[in-house]
Amino acid sequence: MSDAKIRLYVDQPLGEGQAVRLSPDQTHYLVGVMRLAVGAPVLLFNGRDGEWRALLAEAGKRGAVAVCEAVIRPLVLPPDLWLAFAPIKKARTDFIVEKAVELGVRRILPVQTRHTNSERIRQDRLQAHAVEAAEQCGATMVPEVAELQPLERLLAAWPAGRQLYWCDEAAAGQPAMIGGTPGPAAILIGPEGGFAEAEMKRLRGMAGVRSLSLGPRILRADTAAVAAVTLWQAAHGDWR
Amino acid sequence: MSDAKIRLYVDQPLGEGQAVRLSPDQTHYLVGVMRLAVGAPVLLFNGRDGEWRALLAEAGKRGAVAVCEAVIRPLVLPPDLWLAFAPIKKARTDFIVEKAVELGVRRILPVQTRHTNSERIRQDRLQAHAVEAAEQCGATMVPEVAELQPLERLLAAWPAGRQLYWCDEAAAGQPAMIGGTPGPAAILIGPEGGFAEAEMKRLRGMAGVRSLSLGPRILRADTAAVAAVTLWQAAHGDWR
Repeated sequence: MSDAKIRLYVDQPLGEGQAVRLSPDQTHYLVGVMRLAVGAPVLLFNGRDGEWRALLAEAGKRGAVAVCEAVIRPLVLPPDLWLAFAPIKKARTDFIVEKAVELGVRRILPVQTRHTNSERIRQDRLQAHAVEAAEQCGATMVPEVAELQPLERLLAAWPAGRQLYWCDEAAAGQPAMIGGTPGPAAILIGPEGGFAEAEMKRLRGMAGVRSLSLGPRILRADTAAVAAVTLWQAAHGDWR
Repeated sequence: MSDAKIRLYVDQPLGEGQAVRLSPDQTHYLVGVMRLAVGAPVLLFNGRDGEWRALLAEAGKRGAVAVCEAVIRPLVLPPDLWLAFAPIKKARTDFIVEKAVELGVRRILPVQTRHTNSERIRQDRLQAHAVEAAEQCGATMVPEVAELQPLERLLAAWPAGRQLYWCDEAAAGQPAMIGGTPGPAAILIGPEGGFAEAEMKRLRGMAGVRSLSLGPRILRADTAAVAAVTLWQAAHGDWR
């Protein structure tokens, strides 16, 4: 496909002959760490224009510029799946974001539940993790990481027609069947302490909501997120 | 079920009235960290005799002893699934072991492939991670973590009748169907650099071996391990 090994996400438009100024971090990585020089190929994507082969036209301490040569892959969106989860410890939250991008979701929604320990997240840091994961896994689009919002607010504005799967620990031992049909969907993972009674009641009363069992053992929230997205992808997503 | 919250893995036999001396680490945790006193309940399992409610009979600096009162759950083995994988960076290797235990496998087999970076693993440290994950996830058995062995040696002694699924990056984009039938099985995850040509040839020529696709994106080895075990569990394991 291409002799270029390094993939970078950029914000700018991509098109034939388009010059793209790289960020200081990207410049440091390409020039300082990887020792690329003028003329070296890199791959660029911006989530809109597909993946481009570009050549370094400037590669100095003051900055690097790459000029787009040819598109090598079209834009491919992941399936219309959202992953909503209650943030947990830092490393495990980072992990959920990384895995969600690799497995293929379109939006990542941190939610505050009654039993969520984290009152805050660093949205910018999680978004940077999503970018890194997309660069690594060959995705041509970077899922958006939303700001933390209360679960209630998310559910109150739930879009009609979007199926919601939530991981119900009370369903442990029931078959891990994903159910539902292809189409817009979301997976909701609770905090380590589980959902509150009122939250479960709310979920059980909503239309288009299905509970999902993930086997007889108690999964950590990060494991449950990966397992649930995997099952959805194999049943209704782009792993079919 | 039980008022005891803390689950501990022990090596000793468990049975009614059986006194169990806890390790210095367990004693420190129970007495120093959790401030449990004589008479407090704990849960014990040893991978053979099920899960027991026990009461602390001694809880001092010199050590803690718990006396088994009643069995509260029988021994439940995870399905006869092995997870073989090429060790990667420390944190991600730890993660694979933790997730394998939660998802439910019976043996964990680190293997050395041509492109594996780690020449050594700390088997004792990984086994301790498996114990911790079992304590956490409610398992009554702790999967064995084997010593690192060359992939060739593992394949040369492959047990007849054990189905082997390997994650073939060349199959990317094909449907993520697990295939095969319930029964003894193993999942093999390659290193970040992929399998060598000779290794793939070897695998393709073996009877009872199936390649497994995990969607159109490139998954890290740890993600692939969790996704593959999840699909097998839902199709043939104890998540059915």
